[in-house]
Amino acid sequence: MGPHPAVAAIRLAVRRVLHDLLTEHHRAPVAVPHALSHESPPLVLVACSGGADSMALASALAFESPKLGIRAGGITVDHGLQPGSEARAAEVVQRLRELGLDPVDSVAVTVGRTGGPEAAARDARYAALDTAAERHGAAAVLLGHTRDDQAETVLLGLARGSGIRSLSGMAAVSGAGGRYRRPFLELDRQTARKACMVQSLPVWDDPHNADPAYTRSRLRHEGLPALEKALGKGVVEALARTARLSRDDADALDSWASQAEATVRDAAGLLECAKLYALPPAVRRRVLRRAAIEAGAPAGSLFARHIEEIDRLITGWRGQGAINLPGKVVARRQGGRLVIRQG
Amino acid sequence: MGPHPAVAAIRLAVRRVLHDLLTEHHRAPVAVPHALSHESPPLVLVACSGGADSMALASALAFESPKLGIRAGGITVDHGLQPGSEARAAEVVQRLRELGLDPVDSVAVTVGRTGGPEAAARDARYAALDTAAERHGAAAVLLGHTRDDQAETVLLGLARGSGIRSLSGMAAVSGAGGRYRRPFLELDRQTARKACMVQSLPVWDDPHNADPAYTRSRLRHEGLPALEKALGKGVVEALARTARLSRDDADALDSWASQAEATVRDAAGLLECAKLYALPPAVRRRVLRRAAIEAGAPAGSLFARHIEEIDRLITGWRGQGAINLPGKVVARRQGGRLVIRQG
Repeated sequence: MGPHPAVAAIRLAVRRVLHDLLTEHHRAPVAVPHALSHESPPLVLVACSGGADSMALASALAFESPKLGIRAGGITVDHGLQPGSEARAAEVVQRLRELGLDPVDSVAVTVGRTGGPEAAARDARYAALDTAAERHGAAAVLLGHTRDDQAETVLLGLARGSGIRSLSGMAAVSGAGGRYRRPFLELDRQTARKACMVQSLPVWDDPHNADPAYTRSRLRHEGLPALEKALGKGVVEALARTARLSRDDADALDSWASQAEATVRDAAGLLECAKLYALPPAVRRRVLRRAAIEAGAPAGSLFARHIEEIDRLITGWRGQGAINLPGKVVARRQGGRLVIRQG
Repeated sequence: MGPHPAVAAIRLAVRRVLHDLLTEHHRAPVAVPHALSHESPPLVLVACSGGADSMALASALAFESPKLGIRAGGITVDHGLQPGSEARAAEVVQRLRELGLDPVDSVAVTVGRTGGPEAAARDARYAALDTAAERHGAAAVLLGHTRDDQAETVLLGLARGSGIRSLSGMAAVSGAGGRYRRPFLELDRQTARKACMVQSLPVWDDPHNADPAYTRSRLRHEGLPALEKALGKGVVEALARTARLSRDDADALDSWASQAEATVRDAAGLLECAKLYALPPAVRRRVLRRAAIEAGAPAGSLFARHIEEIDRLITGWRGQGAINLPGKVVARRQGGRLVIRQG
């Protein structure tokens, strides 16, 4: 008798990613991290909070890795945001060791305040995972994000209204050298939870996940269920597909903009308004965004309305004055050229 | 004392669109309909259900058009879906006449069943409006869709999960020769309602709009409010901005695909797999979609999963068999070529 379907599903998802890692290793040995060299078996780490998604991921990694000659380890990050978080981290370490993972580390971080509580926690977590991956010489770090997390991320991006890049959610492969892998991005949360249950894995429910003070939690427990009720059960899958399609679309348009930028500059490197005007609006706006960032505007503070205002210097020119952008960058039109610079 | 801010807002929105119509008329006399010729003042019609949005639109058109030398008329469509719909249509005609519009028509239509009740009613309505516009030689037909309608349309598109074209909502200008104009696409529903109230215009609340049997109604009364509660009040605006940005992005990628298609065909007109492989995924998928439609697959039945399956003949070739597509179209790979044809 084979494993329970939920267990089979999580294992298959992990096996696919491990296969990809080994294939990349054989195909392009130059491009992969040192850790995948032939001298020692490569190490893959799982980032584990102790919740159902990442515990399921850890169990599948522990099961699949020996068959492929891969070493499997685990990291848990102690955000220090709740009383008893240290003890819980120690417990997660213990559970990961019981699964046979080695090495297993707990890393304590200090969460700052930049960008709100959720963003600050995320930044601290990824910095810690980066450091841990480098310290251990890991070839990859697996993250337990599911299709449901992806759907929530798309809706959070939609709420920003800043275009298709923000609709593209999380990538299956991301980080320096493609370090981070998300095997469960096409798998629903319910399957991960079920896989833990049938394997008798104890899981920890982060109270933050149910705290209505957090946007993502409100979305998970109220927003998405209401949307499903109105639009039907396929919403999560549709959002995840939207993410994949949007990512490819955004990549293609970025590459177009990058090529177009070179063609719209004059000999002095200034942007020529007439040539910008001739570009499709979607490409022109991306060229303008690139130019503003190049001039020193911080990407995170540059909103769609800023780009629209610069764009009107091209498409709705009626002698407007200079436009102030974040990072003390100023955009103005002068003699048929667009001048974007700091100060 | 000027008009109430809500009335000022609806008039400004209509004035902008009427200006655009006149400017197009003067700039490109060849491209505009006969009705905008110099012989007689151009006629602009408003499509009016009697609801707040379109009554507000009718009142603004009646106020602005004489100042610009434009004739203003109105059309109401009797869908025959509710008892008493004929009497109501007569009442709307009466109200439009009281606003000073002339000509005013009521058009009865028969709603079919194709594509579900909402799509069938929409198809019947636009066919009737097209006919009425041509009969009267109208230069344009104004539609009362607001920013809230746009937000709902984006969410409906999101639920299909078929990519950014379905996120691009309704266009400000659409139809043959740009006949349809939506002056209120940046205006919220509340403003239209308020403008009717302060002008003492009676409005009719379509019971369909509150009927939970309709997806859009569930979205309006449950889905969107829950999303706003989770994500904040800016959601409607963010969705409307997403629509504008997605439309431009989709247009740019379509034009790229149209150019790319010519470069990936061999002398016999067959698609070369190696050349398709070299395209960015977003462009390749659009080329494949175009080719399937060209071969006879009905656009409306061709889903993302169909295109993904054809795409795997290029990116994941392992000797797969022929792929059946809607409209009895078959896609297969033969000798490094992709053959897509009917039968």
